[in-house]
Amino acid sequence: MNLILLEEKDFTAPDRVRLIGRRMRHIVEIHRAVPGDVLRVGLIDGKIGSGRILESAEEQLSLEVELDQDPPAPLAIRLVVALPRPPSLRKVLQQATALGVKEFVLLHTRRVEKSYWSSHAVEPDSIRHELILGLEQAVDTQMPRVTLERRFKPFVEDRLPGLLENGQGLVADPTGNQPGPRGGGEPATLIVGPEGGFIPYELERLAAQGTQSVALGQRILRVETAVVALLARLAG
Amino acid sequence: MNLILLEEKDFTAPDRVRLIGRRMRHIVEIHRAVPGDVLRVGLIDGKIGSGRILESAEEQLSLEVELDQDPPAPLAIRLVVALPRPPSLRKVLQQATALGVKEFVLLHTRRVEKSYWSSHAVEPDSIRHELILGLEQAVDTQMPRVTLERRFKPFVEDRLPGLLENGQGLVADPTGNQPGPRGGGEPATLIVGPEGGFIPYELERLAAQGTQSVALGQRILRVETAVVALLARLAG
Repeated sequence: MNLILLEEKDFTAPDRVRLIGRRMRHIVEIHRAVPGDVLRVGLIDGKIGSGRILESAEEQLSLEVELDQDPPAPLAIRLVVALPRPPSLRKVLQQATALGVKEFVLLHTRRVEKSYWSSHAVEPDSIRHELILGLEQAVDTQMPRVTLERRFKPFVEDRLPGLLENGQGLVADPTGNQPGPRGGGEPATLIVGPEGGFIPYELERLAAQGTQSVALGQRILRVETAVVALLARLAG
Repeated sequence: MNLILLEEKDFTAPDRVRLIGRRMRHIVEIHRAVPGDVLRVGLIDGKIGSGRILESAEEQLSLEVELDQDPPAPLAIRLVVALPRPPSLRKVLQQATALGVKEFVLLHTRRVEKSYWSSHAVEPDSIRHELILGLEQAVDTQMPRVTLERRFKPFVEDRLPGLLENGQGLVADPTGNQPGPRGGGEPATLIVGPEGGFIPYELERLAAQGTQSVALGQRILRVETAVVALLARLAG
């Protein structure tokens, strides 16, 4: 936790916050912070600054905070990813958030196991937890948006065209053998297939919307590794 | 496991292997393979090909194998990394191996916790296990070499100059603010600091050997995320 993320409801006065639970325990047990210590804090979707511990009582911590710095610039890359197995989903959300992704779409495709959609990992609280871990890691406050698209065709035909009005659409598929992408940080929508790849019909539907294929060479990578590698290359 | 990795000792005849343990269970329980099925196999430090299951007995599996394809080209990037905490070490070894790294140096620096050196994760069997998982993921057979350097100064003064005869030395440090690297796949030695960064003395000693600093922007990344991002950008 390189940043303690605050929510509006933590504030008891304009410059005072009260922390309980996970963040309180982290500050006390990991940072071993005591009254007088100053920590880096940030308000979700707001500014970053410092928080001085005023009091550390049994089960709560009070801090005096000053928020005066802007969060880092977001990455202009939107990530559309075929819903991966739950442990991979957690890593994708956390790592891509740390890299600055602000918009995620979790997509159903033929080779996504239907059971993944009923896993705990796609519930809003679980998703939000991973996003918060990514923001805390990267010292960022801007909460990404995550939408779930449980039907491939309506997403590609009805929603994707709107997304592609703002930047290129790039389809990463393990079956592709196109050269690796290189970006200069321009806006783009990166679409990552499932471990078994998109089926030919899906690739056709995506191509019909004007997307281009990209690949990372002949090595088969875990989705969480491929996502980080592709984002790093496109980030410029 | 996208590839079943074989060792010389698995062979009972020039084209026959017998598998027990983890690989046997994986083939039976995950692939649900039965006699007659054909799997992708490869010999460690040798070729890749196919293995047809002849017999699946109680606790062993026999395969007829044909090895006729070369493994993928290695990445020309050597990775020197300040020894991270054990869970990160496992991810770094596995993911960088999947990306094609063939030479690792695990290095002690001032901000590496000494206890990491006595963890189970740095024992040869643990390291080899992660390398095998990376090779199996990426369908590669060429086993990386991993060396442990428990003293910073002798490594930098006595060994690093030899490594830098073959390609540029690039030092990734979270305290740096140099532009991100861009590679075309040329040979290089990537040197990644600990989570708290190198100390100034260490950066000076590295720079004295002709290394250059590189950074990935102002976001603080986990070492395993930073390693994948840097390798992807340097890979060309």
